[in-house]
Amino acid sequence: MEINRYIDHTLLKPACTSDDIKRLCEEAKKNNFFSVCVNPHFVKLAKKCLDKSNVKIACVVGFPLGANTTNIKVLEAVEAVKNGANEIDMVINNSKLKEKDYNYILDEINEIREKAGVLTKVIIETSLLSQDEVEKMCEIVNLSKAECIKTSTGFVGEGAQLETVRLMASKMNGNKFVKASGGIRDKQTALAMINAGAKRLGTSSGVKIME
Amino acid sequence: MEINRYIDHTLLKPACTSDDIKRLCEEAKKNNFFSVCVNPHFVKLAKKCLDKSNVKIACVVGFPLGANTTNIKVLEAVEAVKNGANEIDMVINNSKLKEKDYNYILDEINEIREKAGVLTKVIIETSLLSQDEVEKMCEIVNLSKAECIKTSTGFVGEGAQLETVRLMASKMNGNKFVKASGGIRDKQTALAMINAGAKRLGTSSGVKIME
Repeated sequence: MEINRYIDHTLLKPACTSDDIKRLCEEAKKNNFFSVCVNPHFVKLAKKCLDKSNVKIACVVGFPLGANTTNIKVLEAVEAVKNGANEIDMVINNSKLKEKDYNYILDEINEIREKAGVLTKVIIETSLLSQDEVEKMCEIVNLSKAECIKTSTGFVGEGAQLETVRLMASKMNGNKFVKASGGIRDKQTALAMINAGAKRLGTSSGVKIME
Repeated sequence: MEINRYIDHTLLKPACTSDDIKRLCEEAKKNNFFSVCVNPHFVKLAKKCLDKSNVKIACVVGFPLGANTTNIKVLEAVEAVKNGANEIDMVINNSKLKEKDYNYILDEINEIREKAGVLTKVIIETSLLSQDEVEKMCEIVNLSKAECIKTSTGFVGEGAQLETVRLMASKMNGNKFVKASGGIRDKQTALAMINAGAKRLGTSSGVKIME
């Protein structure tokens, strides 16, 4: 198994610098990680650093609270793609999920996916959700045009839990897949997440995992 | 002292519901708080709830990481004002501060303040900063068109510290003021922050503080 090809090499800390992002990109090239995952204002820099490599760029949108308007999330996603992002990791509106306004959530996912035009991961923040809510979100992502459901932002509550990843993986249809993220800091946890069904891992510990 | 007039009654949790926001607005009216502080997608609802009251609406922008592009922050602020916000609480780009790109930060603050056209608070996330960086940000806010410097988002590290609030208050020029936020959960702390020089308090414990 090429564990490196599962990894979105991630740096989303609010005070990380351009040098940190350059290092992230160099590490991603060296280890042939699937992508780097960065905040919106660093997409252009990542694009420059990863030019002529096959490492993709994932950009977070509405991150990490998901409490922006749909309009702003869409604009942020479209701008990120224009700046070089190949994938979008968007946060759902958790308030709307709690209110069972499933159409709002589905419409928001679809509008971002359509207007951005790239592979889209739907972050649901499992630490805030009941099992029923996790299952509902699997259903909504299955109905949507998005390709992936992602467990966590890493900023709110606990990250990916094995049981939750297993549940989510069992629910996804066709080629839709699960990204596990938050708290994956060593090889053992990474392998356990893959065994539970995750097809992608979001982690800032990619280099350590590969050692 | 009318402590209630210092309070931005705040609810920014990613999974809070419309009912929670309605309750927040009712509490703000009942206690005559200065404002409610909410996430962007709840501004319209707050506007509806607070119609004909004198409680203002503050909306966070680029919240809580500040790692969006300037363009998206500006669009988010302008949309929030259009939806009913009277004040903007924007997060600076902490990466640019670490890189000493002070012009970027000043320009971003000014563009948001000018295009939004309302009182603007500049959130600096003191838990990530050295004392020199806090002082530098006071200098930048003094130079800018923004009216207020704010300590914290409440989502990254510790919230407002008394010594930091005192330092910030001592540095602000003219009518520019300090908003202390994060971790203010009782009357004793609220009064200490005011004594340290804070002219506004961001707290989700306003009702408890007034009891």
